[in-house]
Amino acid sequence: MNNAWRGFKGSQWQNGIDVQEFIKDNYTEYVGDDSFLEGPTEATNELWQEIVELKKQEIANGGVLDADTSVISTITSHPAGYINKDLEKIVGLQTEKPLKRGLNVYGGIRMAETALKSYGYELDPELDEFFTEHRKTHNQGVFDAYDDDIRMARRNKIVTGLPDAYGRGRIIPDFRRIALYGVDYLKKQKLNDWNALQAKTYTEEDIRLREEVSTQYRALGKLIELGKIYGFDISRPAANAQEAVQWVYLGFLAMVKEDNGAAQGLGRIAEFLDIYIERDLQEGTLTEKEAQELIDHLVMKVRIVRQLRTPEYEALFAGDPTWATLTFAGMLDDNNSLVTKNTFRFLQTLYNMGNAPEPNMTLMWNEKLPKGFKDFCAKVSIDTSAIQYENDDVMRHYYGSNDVSIACCVSPTAGDTGSSIQFFGARASLPKILTYAVTGGYDEKNRSKVIDGLEPITDEYLDYDTLMEKIDAVMDWVATTYVRALNIIHYMHDKYAYEAVQFGLLDTKLHRMMATGIAGIGLATDSMSAVKYAKVRVVRDEEGFPIDYVVEGDQFPTFGNNEKAADEIADMLIKKFVGKLKAQPTYRNAEITTSILTITSNIVYGKATGALFSGQDAKYKGYREAFTPLSPGANPSYSSPYKGALAALKSVSTIDFEDVKDGSSYTWAVHPKALGKERDVQIENLTMLLDGYFGKDGGHHLNVNVFSKEGLEEMLRNPENYPQATIRVSGYALELSKATKEQISDLLERVIHGSF
Amino acid sequence: MNNAWRGFKGSQWQNGIDVQEFIKDNYTEYVGDDSFLEGPTEATNELWQEIVELKKQEIANGGVLDADTSVISTITSHPAGYINKDLEKIVGLQTEKPLKRGLNVYGGIRMAETALKSYGYELDPELDEFFTEHRKTHNQGVFDAYDDDIRMARRNKIVTGLPDAYGRGRIIPDFRRIALYGVDYLKKQKLNDWNALQAKTYTEEDIRLREEVSTQYRALGKLIELGKIYGFDISRPAANAQEAVQWVYLGFLAMVKEDNGAAQGLGRIAEFLDIYIERDLQEGTLTEKEAQELIDHLVMKVRIVRQLRTPEYEALFAGDPTWATLTFAGMLDDNNSLVTKNTFRFLQTLYNMGNAPEPNMTLMWNEKLPKGFKDFCAKVSIDTSAIQYENDDVMRHYYGSNDVSIACCVSPTAGDTGSSIQFFGARASLPKILTYAVTGGYDEKNRSKVIDGLEPITDEYLDYDTLMEKIDAVMDWVATTYVRALNIIHYMHDKYAYEAVQFGLLDTKLHRMMATGIAGIGLATDSMSAVKYAKVRVVRDEEGFPIDYVVEGDQFPTFGNNEKAADEIADMLIKKFVGKLKAQPTYRNAEITTSILTITSNIVYGKATGALFSGQDAKYKGYREAFTPLSPGANPSYSSPYKGALAALKSVSTIDFEDVKDGSSYTWAVHPKALGKERDVQIENLTMLLDGYFGKDGGHHLNVNVFSKEGLEEMLRNPENYPQATIRVSGYALELSKATKEQISDLLERVIHGSF
Repeated sequence: MNNAWRGFKGSQWQNGIDVQEFIKDNYTEYVGDDSFLEGPTEATNELWQEIVELKKQEIANGGVLDADTSVISTITSHPAGYINKDLEKIVGLQTEKPLKRGLNVYGGIRMAETALKSYGYELDPELDEFFTEHRKTHNQGVFDAYDDDIRMARRNKIVTGLPDAYGRGRIIPDFRRIALYGVDYLKKQKLNDWNALQAKTYTEEDIRLREEVSTQYRALGKLIELGKIYGFDISRPAANAQEAVQWVYLGFLAMVKEDNGAAQGLGRIAEFLDIYIERDLQEGTLTEKEAQELIDHLVMKVRIVRQLRTPEYEALFAGDPTWATLTFAGMLDDNNSLVTKNTFRFLQTLYNMGNAPEPNMTLMWNEKLPKGFKDFCAKVSIDTSAIQYENDDVMRHYYGSNDVSIACCVSPTAGDTGSSIQFFGARASLPKILTYAVTGGYDEKNRSKVIDGLEPITDEYLDYDTLMEKIDAVMDWVATTYVRALNIIHYMHDKYAYEAVQFGLLDTKLHRMMATGIAGIGLATDSMSAVKYAKVRVVRDEEGFPIDYVVEGDQFPTFGNNEKAADEIADMLIKKFVGKLKAQPTYRNAEITTSILTITSNIVYGKATGALFSGQDAKYKGYREAFTPLSPGANPSYSSPYKGALAALKSVSTIDFEDVKDGSSYTWAVHPKALGKERDVQIENLTMLLDGYFGKDGGHHLNVNVFSKEGLEEMLRNPENYPQATIRVSGYALELSKATKEQISDLLERVIHGSF
Repeated sequence: MNNAWRGFKGSQWQNGIDVQEFIKDNYTEYVGDDSFLEGPTEATNELWQEIVELKKQEIANGGVLDADTSVISTITSHPAGYINKDLEKIVGLQTEKPLKRGLNVYGGIRMAETALKSYGYELDPELDEFFTEHRKTHNQGVFDAYDDDIRMARRNKIVTGLPDAYGRGRIIPDFRRIALYGVDYLKKQKLNDWNALQAKTYTEEDIRLREEVSTQYRALGKLIELGKIYGFDISRPAANAQEAVQWVYLGFLAMVKEDNGAAQGLGRIAEFLDIYIERDLQEGTLTEKEAQELIDHLVMKVRIVRQLRTPEYEALFAGDPTWATLTFAGMLDDNNSLVTKNTFRFLQTLYNMGNAPEPNMTLMWNEKLPKGFKDFCAKVSIDTSAIQYENDDVMRHYYGSNDVSIACCVSPTAGDTGSSIQFFGARASLPKILTYAVTGGYDEKNRSKVIDGLEPITDEYLDYDTLMEKIDAVMDWVATTYVRALNIIHYMHDKYAYEAVQFGLLDTKLHRMMATGIAGIGLATDSMSAVKYAKVRVVRDEEGFPIDYVVEGDQFPTFGNNEKAADEIADMLIKKFVGKLKAQPTYRNAEITTSILTITSNIVYGKATGALFSGQDAKYKGYREAFTPLSPGANPSYSSPYKGALAALKSVSTIDFEDVKDGSSYTWAVHPKALGKERDVQIENLTMLLDGYFGKDGGHHLNVNVFSKEGLEEMLRNPENYPQATIRVSGYALELSKATKEQISDLLERVIHGSF
């Protein structure tokens, strides 16, 4: 390892796997501005043009360019594939050609079959038979254990988006380990761990863990094989920047080949890779142009990852996202930021190759970040709307680490990258908990009895205390049913679709979080506020079934206006439900965490949710038409904020991170003119706004979109003119050209703040 | 069900699955003699002749007539197959033709591959790849979790015969349920059970059980399909005797197609089927000749079951046994026996089609059984040496049931058939525990250090107390290592080779026993007796390693001579080791039970076991040459018994069943002349002997062989003249023509009691 580690400082990271210590010992903070950045090379332009052409063909082809039907995707299932071998500095494709989708079936053979069929392909009948007869998949396992209540909760969309038919994702392997240590060393460490697990008696957990580590060890062997397929020896550490980027990418490639996971994060690689680039720059073996090209080519590869999914999946998670979430920046400690030149380079890819939804750019914001970097971020946000921001101080405070990575949308690892995973748990609907409290557990859409043993409210006017009692009972049912489903899901996923190479790149002793979620906090808050501060009359049909709620009396406080009365209701609802979730026993003793996040499922949720207590009358703030989309994530209801952008930010930032340690996503849009007329004023204002939201207010997350409603309408009308336009939705960036009509109509509903 | 149940009495069994209650309400005890029995029909003769021919071809072909290499055996994997369709009253084959072996791979793809290769076949490479890449098998799972100690224990034959490379077996499905209730009803009951398992929270065990019941439900659907393949509708109950026999057999067939299990019992079907036969006889739709033909044809099918196994497996379990153990007779209560005419008919198959090792005829002996039956049993034993006997009173006392079935060799279900299973656990070697106590955990054969942290005994003469202390430490190590291995094995078997149809024919809430075993009690007892009652000098090589033990001083008491001093040592050793086994935590909270049983692995064990403390000098009783076979099961050492047959029986019967609730097997041989000159005297004497052994003495099990050493030698010399000759070995009947040279030489060593 001597040559590979030449010039590196520190020793702790040499005595065992400790990437964060290596970064601390060796990185070079960059406090300058973006003037050093380079544009694309000719090779980058040419390669990207080929991709753009292929993407056009993909859209013309109905969304899928090509797909495997008989080769099951594994780490080593395919020969080497290239876009244009001579031009690529970083190589490796999921299949043998770009945009051709691999076939992952362990998560669910039915999902794979349906997905193929939707795009005109047929699953090899022999494979189908084999997986039906001899090899159970995750999906079958889950449904073998699901009970009636879980099925009812699922069917009626009280809980939606559960990873029970495909890969769960949300594991962020520490790809940096490959470059720093080489895979042989990682194998050796796993063998040591396996030996250290020997004991006089084994629980089932012990047996499973021993088996898992064996499986990881073999998968790491396959990872070495994948390197060989492309002509690299990744059993040894990377010796220069090109190798480091390539080694890291091969790890990522192994993940997306192994598993069709719901979210497959990149982790924190920018600052790590900077160390290799800096060394090469100083050794004179690399130029800035070449360095940028390496990062451009890596990002290009991440952009063309394609998983095979069904149209139903697309309805929940539009735009073919893979959530290759890239986490960067933040502070090392109170004095030193983790910003490097390479942090800039990753953002620069948005200029060099145009806008793109992947990697999901996730910036750890801190007031103390160097000004040059903060200004550059604001500029990129204004130009591309491609960045989401998370609160660096909150992460460091709650998870005691400056190496937290974000999985999926907003969900942090519980410490250094590589030390924890999340059992992805989708989300439960708060508004439906409210409607069920009134109906006595009957679904407002299909009228079926979902919760047994609950009596309906039969009063003409809703009484707050009576209602809260009922809500408490419904929450009990939802919390137990929900966590029960998650326990089944992750038990079966470990059993039938274990992500061996991904776990192989993590610590053996892991902190596991069970990442539950809540949808519809805005609507639920406004509804309870209406009951508390106005008067809500229940409208019933001839059978006495509640079909509408009419607000009478005064205007009531709503979430998103910095009104304490409303914000406290939000806090109460969250605490109440999260408390019940946390009381549940979990598979592998996972820690229950919760997010306020919807992705684009706010639309699906909304369509299943009838009238609510805040009414349908536009004269009241917080009104909403029955069976229309909810606002996304932690956003105030579409009809709620009326005191402007700052008040909305204030309200959202009151959400207590202690309750929602899986993150709460606020998707926010501002008219460019609201930020100022001149570009430098816009940059300054956006920077100040982020400082305020994350600093004083302690907000957790912000999706920053900068565009006008007219601009959005123009892009949506003529998408062919804006092939790479993206918009931040709850937790990721959606390519506008891939949005459905419904999603577009929802986008147009969203509040674009025209002023503060 | 009205027509199928016409004439049946009782109601409890109609309100839920309760076969035993049905039998009690409806069976007809038979207290007469064997004079009613019929010989074979022409069809039976003709069919059996075809089998005899095929068996000859099988032997000529090296032991395997034909084998599948690309079709994986499942319940419904094959089209209908026949010996001679027109002649068969009971139909159904494992594959499409008789004696062609099916391919079971879930237990271990390597085992299947090796077995095929040994007989000149090649596993379909596509299958091989599929199971290597995508579908883990039991064997791989186990070895992914095994630790160094377990591997050492296994390699050095401290524990041998673990079901870690093939199916575990030892599940006795209640096939009677198919005939009595029809499969639709069984499916409905499973669905009820599944629904009853719903709860607010699930442990992993709950989730697994729910999944298992789903799997069972689907497998029962496949069982109906299997019926359809042969033209039967077994979704409904059997309506007459032919259907009842056929329905039961199809359940058995589904089992042997689903799984290559170490032992696949038939359970207690004789008396159950008698009820259907009696009804048909009374209705005039069946004659005795036809009834016997049904049983003959059923037994014929059981005789030709063939699983695909490796030569290594054969070394442990010679003669291609499947342990289709058939349990019969015993008492219903203190006044009524369970003997029916059909109990006779099953024994009669040994005359109608000649001798055979399967089904493994296991008779629940009780003094109170009708004399006519007892005499017939004795006669069959004298003629065929094909029966093993178990103690009916002991079974009923310890397991509170008159419906106990025997799995494998001697191992009882813990209650009614269908209410419990055994996690098969092979056995540990007591003699090697003794040698390790002296060597300090070094193996006497390969000199490797097996147990860390143990110091050797360096004294010239063995001191009993010092030795016992060391034995205690070695036993600790063996007990923890052994049960740890079993926990891994059964965790993985449930995970990768779950026997869905077999469990589908059992209760959902099962009593699980972890059936451990002990080998070498005779030799271990004699050795400790030598140390205690004589003087034992350790002979060492130049490195100080113990290579021999020389007895000095007086003769010492040995096991098998009704000497209290020796029998107490046996008891102490058993209690000590079993106590340590029972202290171990087990997978699924299985109850640890223990057997004293070796099958034919006494040879393999012996070859791995060096000199012992009872020495190698023939002037001392209990001597044994190093690295030669142990005596089988609970047998006294070959050189021990010298006080005759009765004293040996007495010694063995002192073993406390409370310690060895999985049974202790005593394989016993007597010269016909020792039983008397005349046939009727022989019968009377054997009956009396069995009454004494099982009655007053409370012995648990007896394999009764009746032949002379000269007779055995003649049969072994000219096997072609005795193609169907069998001999009872520890726990089953071995076809002499299939015994290896080593096994034959071992057989000749055995004590054949020439007198009492």
